[in-house]
Amino acid sequence: MKNNPFDNARIILVGTTHPGNIGAAARAMKTMGLTKLSLVSPKLFPSADATARAAGADDVLATTRVYASLQEAVADCVLVYGTSARSRSLPCPVISPEQAAVELLDCAKKPSEVAIVFGRERTGLTNEELDVCHKMIVIPANPGFSSLNLASAVQLVSYELCKLVSGTANRDEANVTDIERVTAEDLDHLYAHLQDCLVEIGFLDLDKPRRLMRRLKKLFNRAGLDQNEYNILRGILTAVQESVRKK
Amino acid sequence: MKNNPFDNARIILVGTTHPGNIGAAARAMKTMGLTKLSLVSPKLFPSADATARAAGADDVLATTRVYASLQEAVADCVLVYGTSARSRSLPCPVISPEQAAVELLDCAKKPSEVAIVFGRERTGLTNEELDVCHKMIVIPANPGFSSLNLASAVQLVSYELCKLVSGTANRDEANVTDIERVTAEDLDHLYAHLQDCLVEIGFLDLDKPRRLMRRLKKLFNRAGLDQNEYNILRGILTAVQESVRKK
Repeated sequence: MKNNPFDNARIILVGTTHPGNIGAAARAMKTMGLTKLSLVSPKLFPSADATARAAGADDVLATTRVYASLQEAVADCVLVYGTSARSRSLPCPVISPEQAAVELLDCAKKPSEVAIVFGRERTGLTNEELDVCHKMIVIPANPGFSSLNLASAVQLVSYELCKLVSGTANRDEANVTDIERVTAEDLDHLYAHLQDCLVEIGFLDLDKPRRLMRRLKKLFNRAGLDQNEYNILRGILTAVQESVRKK
Repeated sequence: MKNNPFDNARIILVGTTHPGNIGAAARAMKTMGLTKLSLVSPKLFPSADATARAAGADDVLATTRVYASLQEAVADCVLVYGTSARSRSLPCPVISPEQAAVELLDCAKKPSEVAIVFGRERTGLTNEELDVCHKMIVIPANPGFSSLNLASAVQLVSYELCKLVSGTANRDEANVTDIERVTAEDLDHLYAHLQDCLVEIGFLDLDKPRRLMRRLKKLFNRAGLDQNEYNILRGILTAVQESVRKK
């Protein structure tokens, strides 16, 4: 994540009651690379609680803007998303955090300003505020207990954005462990050595090999050995042979 | 979400300093449909702070188990995931929360017990604890500020599980292996046997162990052993010991 393509995306918290949640939301945003926070009529801000819970995201709080109404806060935005953990019977389109991330990334390219709006801790957004939203992001949740913490909701939506920006690269890298695998030829030497050793200790009978070597090869092939591990295993086999022979 | 396929997945918090984080983690889990929480050596539990922050997830706290070590907490698990917001330079496979969710769902079908382990707030997991983990879940984050709140990390991983169960995520079945893994306790027996054997053949000096056992554990943790492979390896170790002793 070199340039942040989400400079055009702002998080808006409406009517937040607990200032600690504002700080926690700022921290959640910053961990995912988002920095623009706006507040609509917070009960208390700035506050020591917010700063404490920001835990290093003070820079996000320092640039946070405070508005008297949601309308003002989104005045320059081309797209306004509301958020909810429940599917309400709403006349506006409902999308997932993942889908929202894709749309946001698209908007950020243009660039145009986009807002993601989070309601009050207990009561969410009013009908009037919902009317300001173009779409609703519904966060998948346990239908029997969907009361996400405010900062957690911010975390999840920000995470989907972060995943999309850094994610494609990360996903490719994820499958590649940083193991420098030894060659198939090296593995053949190891398997030959292992087979000799197993015969020597009487564990393998080459006349009745069953599937023993195939199974062991499968195991080590699956693991993928690096040079160091290869050397250790060869060393162990040599030590076994020396111990058996010298007595 | 009718039946919860994640009854086999437990969240483990290791060495949590702030009891409030335990409550917040319980809430985060429950919003996503997870209910099994274990704690390893928490600084304080139960506590009023934990209950307050659970905000209705008291049932999760009521069934929370407390252990003295991570080994005990994962003894019956076939798959143990560590978590981190940073890619460490470790030779164990690194996967995304999304990929972990796919693997977990697969294990839950069998069913086998699976653990997702979260370290201390500031210092994460110790090397010894990391050695217990078969894979690391790395949460995509801002490289310049990856200090996720503990409950937020639990929230994100739980969310990926919830998304998968509620069907809003795409499944990539190709990545799932069909190995019936042995438990962490079985692996501990294997490693103890291996260590005895290496000492006996003079390959391991317990006074100068270097990183030998850690490296071997990583290799086998990475491979993931099934019962058959486990039996073969135990059989080889016994055969080595008998060969060395009888002469």
